[in-house]
Amino acid sequence: MSSNSFGKLFTVTTFGESHGPAIGCVIDGCPPGLAIAPEEFRHDLARRATGRSRYTSQRHEADEVEILSGVYEGRTTGTPIALLIRNTDQRSKDYGDIASSFRPGHADYTYWQKYGIRDPRGGGRSSARETTMRVAAAVLAKKWLAEHHAVRVRGYLAQIGDITPDAFDWDAVEQNPFFWPDAVQVPALENHINALRKSGDSVGARVNVVADGVPPGWGEPIYGKLDGDLASALMSINAVKGVEIGDGFAAVAQRGSEHRDEMGMDGFASNHAGGILGGISSGQPVIASIALKPTSSILIPGRSVNLAGEPVEVVTKGRHDPCVGIRATPIAEAMVALVLIDHALRHRAQCCDVGPVAPRIP
Amino acid sequence: MSSNSFGKLFTVTTFGESHGPAIGCVIDGCPPGLAIAPEEFRHDLARRATGRSRYTSQRHEADEVEILSGVYEGRTTGTPIALLIRNTDQRSKDYGDIASSFRPGHADYTYWQKYGIRDPRGGGRSSARETTMRVAAAVLAKKWLAEHHAVRVRGYLAQIGDITPDAFDWDAVEQNPFFWPDAVQVPALENHINALRKSGDSVGARVNVVADGVPPGWGEPIYGKLDGDLASALMSINAVKGVEIGDGFAAVAQRGSEHRDEMGMDGFASNHAGGILGGISSGQPVIASIALKPTSSILIPGRSVNLAGEPVEVVTKGRHDPCVGIRATPIAEAMVALVLIDHALRHRAQCCDVGPVAPRIP
Amino acid sequence: MSSNSFGKLFTVTTFGESHGPAIGCVIDGCPPGLAIAPEEFRHDLARRATGRSRYTSQRHEADEVEILSGVYEGRTTGTPIALLIRNTDQRSKDYGDIASSFRPGHADYTYWQKYGIRDPRGGGRSSARETTMRVAAAVLAKKWLAEHHAVRVRGYLAQIGDITPDAFDWDAVEQNPFFWPDAVQVPALENHINALRKSGDSVGARVNVVADGVPPGWGEPIYGKLDGDLASALMSINAVKGVEIGDGFAAVAQRGSEHRDEMGMDGFASNHAGGILGGISSGQPVIASIALKPTSSILIPGRSVNLAGEPVEVVTKGRHDPCVGIRATPIAEAMVALVLIDHALRHRAQCCDVGPVAPRIP
Amino acid sequence: MSSNSFGKLFTVTTFGESHGPAIGCVIDGCPPGLAIAPEEFRHDLARRATGRSRYTSQRHEADEVEILSGVYEGRTTGTPIALLIRNTDQRSKDYGDIASSFRPGHADYTYWQKYGIRDPRGGGRSSARETTMRVAAAVLAKKWLAEHHAVRVRGYLAQIGDITPDAFDWDAVEQNPFFWPDAVQVPALENHINALRKSGDSVGARVNVVADGVPPGWGEPIYGKLDGDLASALMSINAVKGVEIGDGFAAVAQRGSEHRDEMGMDGFASNHAGGILGGISSGQPVIASIALKPTSSILIPGRSVNLAGEPVEVVTKGRHDPCVGIRATPIAEAMVALVLIDHALRHRAQCCDVGPVAPRIP
Repeated sequence: MSSNSFGKLFTVTTFGESHGPAIGCVIDGCPPGLAIAPEEFRHDLARRATGRSRYTSQRHEADEVEILSGVYEGRTTGTPIALLIRNTDQRSKDYGDIASSFRPGHADYTYWQKYGIRDPRGGGRSSARETTMRVAAAVLAKKWLAEHHAVRVRGYLAQIGDITPDAFDWDAVEQNPFFWPDAVQVPALENHINALRKSGDSVGARVNVVADGVPPGWGEPIYGKLDGDLASALMSINAVKGVEIGDGFAAVAQRGSEHRDEMGMDGFASNHAGGILGGISSGQPVIASIALKPTSSILIPGRSVNLAGEPVEVVTKGRHDPCVGIRATPIAEAMVALVLIDHALRHRAQCCDVGPVAPRIP
Repeated sequence: MSSNSFGKLFTVTTFGESHGPAIGCVIDGCPPGLAIAPEEFRHDLARRATGRSRYTSQRHEADEVEILSGVYEGRTTGTPIALLIRNTDQRSKDYGDIASSFRPGHADYTYWQKYGIRDPRGGGRSSARETTMRVAAAVLAKKWLAEHHAVRVRGYLAQIGDITPDAFDWDAVEQNPFFWPDAVQVPALENHINALRKSGDSVGARVNVVADGVPPGWGEPIYGKLDGDLASALMSINAVKGVEIGDGFAAVAQRGSEHRDEMGMDGFASNHAGGILGGISSGQPVIASIALKPTSSILIPGRSVNLAGEPVEVVTKGRHDPCVGIRATPIAEAMVALVLIDHALRHRAQCCDVGPVAPRIP
Repeated sequence: MSSNSFGKLFTVTTFGESHGPAIGCVIDGCPPGLAIAPEEFRHDLARRATGRSRYTSQRHEADEVEILSGVYEGRTTGTPIALLIRNTDQRSKDYGDIASSFRPGHADYTYWQKYGIRDPRGGGRSSARETTMRVAAAVLAKKWLAEHHAVRVRGYLAQIGDITPDAFDWDAVEQNPFFWPDAVQVPALENHINALRKSGDSVGARVNVVADGVPPGWGEPIYGKLDGDLASALMSINAVKGVEIGDGFAAVAQRGSEHRDEMGMDGFASNHAGGILGGISSGQPVIASIALKPTSSILIPGRSVNLAGEPVEVVTKGRHDPCVGIRATPIAEAMVALVLIDHALRHRAQCCDVGPVAPRIP
Repeated sequence: MSSNSFGKLFTVTTFGESHGPAIGCVIDGCPPGLAIAPEEFRHDLARRATGRSRYTSQRHEADEVEILSGVYEGRTTGTPIALLIRNTDQRSKDYGDIASSFRPGHADYTYWQKYGIRDPRGGGRSSARETTMRVAAAVLAKKWLAEHHAVRVRGYLAQIGDITPDAFDWDAVEQNPFFWPDAVQVPALENHINALRKSGDSVGARVNVVADGVPPGWGEPIYGKLDGDLASALMSINAVKGVEIGDGFAAVAQRGSEHRDEMGMDGFASNHAGGILGGISSGQPVIASIALKPTSSILIPGRSVNLAGEPVEVVTKGRHDPCVGIRATPIAEAMVALVLIDHALRHRAQCCDVGPVAPRIP
């Protein structure tokens, strides 16, 4: 499989640069018969989009999806589904300086070293604009998972800088531009981000994703483990520097008698494992958490070099997110959903004759 | 690629159960002409092996590698290299109880749910015994990386329970059974593990791996990023619950002006990124860190169910590691080396015409 | 790799239906730095296009390629290259009857059985219109192969019904609408096809492809052999029912002393092998041949069933080729070129350290 | 997927050289719960083995399969199944001359050019001994296909040199060492092969394989078509130079009105298509045919070069088959069975919700 494709059986191939004519994806392997309409992409794309609040980049894109193939009379046919979104709000002049120097902490330098050529407009292929198509593809995944397995994939912002939620309410998450689970804290967050923007700096974040309803049995040991594939999927998101399943790094300081999730026919006593044991889902909610670094595209000057190898100071003007983690919530959900549908198909390929196995812990 | 294979071009397929007749692997895609002899596997296999100190499981395996194919007159031929290790110290009776009940926090239940059948002897396929072959395969990877790119991959134990190193010295790492970088702390660690074993409990750990000498340019955006593939590789190791690249989760609380690694023609000013930007190596050391949970195979009774769905108390007798993280160091090194050689080959496939690109930061 | 993708390292993913809004492809893994412009696709697309002569289907498509990504300032950047062609000359009403019945000898019935739903307009995904994107993708492959290895891939029509060429001249091939290597026979062929069209019937064909300049060493035993991958690639073309390498089925009646290609330092004495031994190129021209069945879309009524399971007589109106093999020549060239560039990259991934090996037979 | 692996979901990885210590394979993705015992491999391995009659190579191998993993208490567990066969009858001295010169028409030269090193003992990896493991792996495939879909895969020798069967009887096929379907001709064939052996020459052959019971719907357009994957699988067999599906090259001279298989609710009127339309099985028997070249390992001297680039005459002593096609019948069956089980799993992954589709032609 080529490196711009993702998933073994439910395969998503994305293409497009931040300021090229269009971005798009091809979804191959989708089960036939799934009802889908162009307007169904709008909700999640709007959640991910820039320019919806003052707290994200001010780039405004319509993000209108055109379905080019694979759907007939409103249903998937089993053939590849191509989705296309035209870029409309390109301002390449914002990026004039970037073409001749390398932003510190950015992919500018590494793309240049790898390929000997790069599209500098808005970061080209390394821009988070690419993640739009992940979210679009996951609309199909989420719908299929919900219809066939009652799986629900939801995410929220779990930390921004030093701030963590004081309370937790799923209902709150979708009612503020931060996907923050505590409504009371939202005004404080707004002040925090506004101050950060004024300072010209950025900050990191943590996003948690929870998938309810995943049946036991998904995941393929040893090198296609569910947690292994989630790790790869989540680490592929721009700015992600860490991935945890369940208790994650907290497990380092735990005892075995504390970490293991005891179980009875009335359920599990805890979920330190994050719903995955031995690389296979246990039937508990699958829980993953990611760390997003603060974006390196900031107004505070930083030392770097230019194409001629000369020292330069770099300031990134243009429209940027003070905290890229804010918009990462729907992207992380998307990657989890894409991993889950892929494993749902992989599991039934090998094991659909097995059927329900007793005893099953509820 | 099937799920017991790992790597796109340098592909390792492992097989074998903990208490079956043998474990083995097939390495496909190895460059031809690499000198290799059976005795070269001994060093790293001994580092990973049980029974070498009082602080790991007391299972004693010779771990003698037989090269079955792919090597002619001491050199790799480019055809698949099969390595075989016979299991010799099986004590299946230790696991009699496991066959009819599920250890809490273990893969027993999930394998049963997935396949409807499982080999309960010593955890079967889910045993860490499988990792022996990863270490064996990585002997070839490490050697090729050293010869062709002067890459060196080294790991150490960075935390055990609440204990972290007070000092750091690479030389110390190989001179104690814990891969601990501070020789002074070793006696205290010994006491700690002994006390833990007596208590019948286990504890988690953190392992860090550093790869020096990785040239800029390795890694394939978007879904074959170097960090994405490292995340998957490391998460596939038994008991791993979290993966970090560079600063990892610490980046959540950082500012962009702090996290970004400024650079000049005399080098980078820092390495918060862990040597990877945009999914591509930057030329700095590649740094990864993993969290290992405390093993669930402990002597303290835990509540679970049996095959009949009845409540039971489970105690895991037999030979187990009080801290599985101790032996994870060579395994983590192995996975990093396997990812690196795979990307070395992938990079030259697409980009070997590019040649060295100026300016290159040393 | 999903099933609408082709190639391991130079990967082409195609999408689109015959009468959907567009067809397109994503080319992933292309080496960076290759110069390419939209107009470079025109020549080969015109060779494949319908409506250019009276002897093919009268559908007229502009086949204007839009490059959506992966090219910056006229050069490939190493990121995925998306190509898009809008469909313009759709006449779905031509296909009204097809929606409710199955054309005998066509994919109508099998798509229906597999997916339970199908896009009946013009054959949907099973239409040869999909091959347009193979030809487009191969424009990049052919150019790279020519620039980097002086490889030239050329095809010709080697048989149509019972007619075989009386003479052979590469120059003649491009000067008639049949890709026929004997200019003298062209008027007779025109009469033959005209008569066939009047009769409402169709006829089969054989296409040969020759790749000059392929160096020795391309191809990966055992399951990625060069001939194995060519066989799969060529068999995937619509209507192909057979593939030969070198002497192909003629080898059944040969003796070993006759078939083996003797060799000296002045070259090979013959090329019965078609340039491939043990799945690896020998340095001789690579020669492949394919059999194309007569299209089942004909005006002569045929017995079939409809959606209700009732017997029907099917007549395929609309615009069809009396001999689909005529336009298959550039498609077969395209598939050979795509296999060759993929193996060029795969070979250098594993073996680029090997360098030129003596003795090399010229 | 690496090139010594075959199949997307039911994946077979083979290893081993002709005169190395062992050959083996790893089967990954096998559905769990399939009963299998070591003795079940004997029948098909004996059919493929050398030394069972005077008409094949006189190498005698026990071909005793050891199951190393993936089977517990006689049933597959869903984990990788490793099979091992030790080589016992090696006579490397037979091959002394081969080490320093290249047999014309053999893989000696191309392996040397690719890898710069080769194992010359008995052809090393390019030997047909590798096919033993394909036959072993297919024992599992055939059994699963028979149990789950009543699929039966059978082959026979359809031509040897100029000789074709005068009659056809499946029962005759297994009662002579040639897999010949006309018992009356067997004595004549024996004379023919004996005379050929005396002359020191070899001859080509054609093998046909028929798979009954394949349901409609298997095969994945466009690049994972059932016929495309069969073509690749069959072309990967040693000495194969051509592959046909159904009428194959005979279709070149056919009319559409003749080739298309008309259909009614009482069945298809013919099977020119060989059971595959648009890359998907139609429910008719799947029919494939292969051309095998005469082996180049013969006693008649041939002109070649040695390692020093000097002209030499090569005579291949040792134990060789006068017609490699004779033993190809079980190998071709094996490859067809492996393709079919892989597509059975792939089909149910994507389409198992579709269920039986009406109308279904019996």
